[in-house]
Amino acid sequence: MKYFLGVDIGGTKTAAGLLDADGHMLAEKEIPTLVHDGAERIVRNTAQLISSLAEQEGIKKSQLSYLGVGCPGTVNQKTGVVEYANNLYFEHVPLADMLNHEVGLPVLLENDANCAGLGEYWALPDREEVESFFMVTLGTGVGTAFIWKGQLFTGFNGAAPEMGHCTLNAEGELCDCKNRGCWEVYCAGHALVRAGREAAKSCSDSLLWELSGKDLEKLDGNLIFQAWRQGDEMAGKVVERYLYYYRAGIGNVINAFQPQVLTIGGGISRQGRLFIDTANAAIAEYSYCKTVAQTQVRQAVLGTKAGIYGAALLGAKR
Amino acid sequence: MKYFLGVDIGGTKTAAGLLDADGHMLAEKEIPTLVHDGAERIVRNTAQLISSLAEQEGIKKSQLSYLGVGCPGTVNQKTGVVEYANNLYFEHVPLADMLNHEVGLPVLLENDANCAGLGEYWALPDREEVESFFMVTLGTGVGTAFIWKGQLFTGFNGAAPEMGHCTLNAEGELCDCKNRGCWEVYCAGHALVRAGREAAKSCSDSLLWELSGKDLEKLDGNLIFQAWRQGDEMAGKVVERYLYYYRAGIGNVINAFQPQVLTIGGGISRQGRLFIDTANAAIAEYSYCKTVAQTQVRQAVLGTKAGIYGAALLGAKR
Repeated sequence: MKYFLGVDIGGTKTAAGLLDADGHMLAEKEIPTLVHDGAERIVRNTAQLISSLAEQEGIKKSQLSYLGVGCPGTVNQKTGVVEYANNLYFEHVPLADMLNHEVGLPVLLENDANCAGLGEYWALPDREEVESFFMVTLGTGVGTAFIWKGQLFTGFNGAAPEMGHCTLNAEGELCDCKNRGCWEVYCAGHALVRAGREAAKSCSDSLLWELSGKDLEKLDGNLIFQAWRQGDEMAGKVVERYLYYYRAGIGNVINAFQPQVLTIGGGISRQGRLFIDTANAAIAEYSYCKTVAQTQVRQAVLGTKAGIYGAALLGAKR
Repeated sequence: MKYFLGVDIGGTKTAAGLLDADGHMLAEKEIPTLVHDGAERIVRNTAQLISSLAEQEGIKKSQLSYLGVGCPGTVNQKTGVVEYANNLYFEHVPLADMLNHEVGLPVLLENDANCAGLGEYWALPDREEVESFFMVTLGTGVGTAFIWKGQLFTGFNGAAPEMGHCTLNAEGELCDCKNRGCWEVYCAGHALVRAGREAAKSCSDSLLWELSGKDLEKLDGNLIFQAWRQGDEMAGKVVERYLYYYRAGIGNVINAFQPQVLTIGGGISRQGRLFIDTANAAIAEYSYCKTVAQTQVRQAVLGTKAGIYGAALLGAKR
């Protein structure tokens, strides 16, 4: 029997998963990513994680065709090189070759947002009928992935789609990428939290301030949305601004790609139906063509495991 | 011998072209589009134009496999219906069926910007090596087309890519589509001309005013660029704003699609190397991933005939 093995190397942890031939996860294991110890150490630890998972499940190397790897940053899928990943401190790291050397399996490498998209695509119950699929991951940043006719679309150089760095406000705030008004400036998780903390600090009788236990470090996305739902005015300003740019960003995704299905995932998005309903409102507002069928919006179903699924299935026949 | 026949139905004229089996244009003919006379009259006139072209060239119906038609607005490629085309006053017009009835050939229908993209794609001398191709047409509006692995990408509903209505400035000017700060608000030909006329009117000792022969109706895009090149301050403001948003729009195209080749066409873009050099500058400025290969920018080569070529080749094997 054949199995699929995938690893999701993140800025804080590295998680490996073993899938059966039908794509169901049998087991999972994770370790911290020691980002300050360098690529060689990360590779060795990842190899150990994989060996230990395979051993625990009684899987032999001959039962695996490849190892799938998801990793943040810019990835050259053809050469297996991580060109740049700021939160791993990687610059031109030949990750596929290094892992192949340790693990003895062919390695398929892909950007982590693309892996998450691929994972959610595989999880669609009606995948066979979905000709185009877009995923937006609202996490630390804003990740995007697109699949057309079963093929992951990454641009000719592996760097697309990067809708998180499309301009929404050419005269807006400065982004880490040095341009102004990128979607990520407004809708990255850290942007939401920073705006929430600033709002809480500026108004010590706000619910925001109270919910944080008067310790701004404890104020996260969930607490900000909670304060907003309870009618806090300061939280309202923060959340409304977030949702305003979320809508505009979704509008750009729609006008660029018009995907049949749009899935919204990532930690920030887990607020009941809020992000689904808001995306539907954005489509009604922004889609240039109102007289044709419109994109279906869905909630991601794999949570933080989407990236492991997608990595494991990188080489699966679609 | 087989031939290709294509028609480009525009808001002012309708042009038909006959191509040989190698895709070279043998003959072309055009008539005015009588947009106020309704779809039936337009269809009859188009059918007559085609018959007259075929007759003139001695082509029989049996030498044609289909008629390719390009048309502005939202087109349903599957049903052959023009859902909405404001400058033809079309709403839910079954154009393919109507033309098929008159002409007796299968009709393939596509949006005109997509046809222009397809025409320029066919004209690439290195087409076989180009895995992804994007075209921006700077004409009356901002048209966009994308081809991946030889396939025209139109979104699941036929309405993509519509980058002209992606938001560049969420708090910007109101667009005809009712959203704010679309690329088209800043970079449509009529936006440029309007801004030029306003600038000329506001300053009667400007070169802009002089070049227009003191008749603002005569001020077009070419004269605005001419005044800018001659150092006119008012024209400078208009052109610099235009190019600022042109850069931002190109940035969004790049981050969304990362095409191998980006072709710039349309009447506004014929200013020497200005639009090519500016697009290259935009890529250097906006492309999120600087460490990978970057898009090649090229000038369109087919001029106003790109749409006829693309329509004629809609059913050609790519």
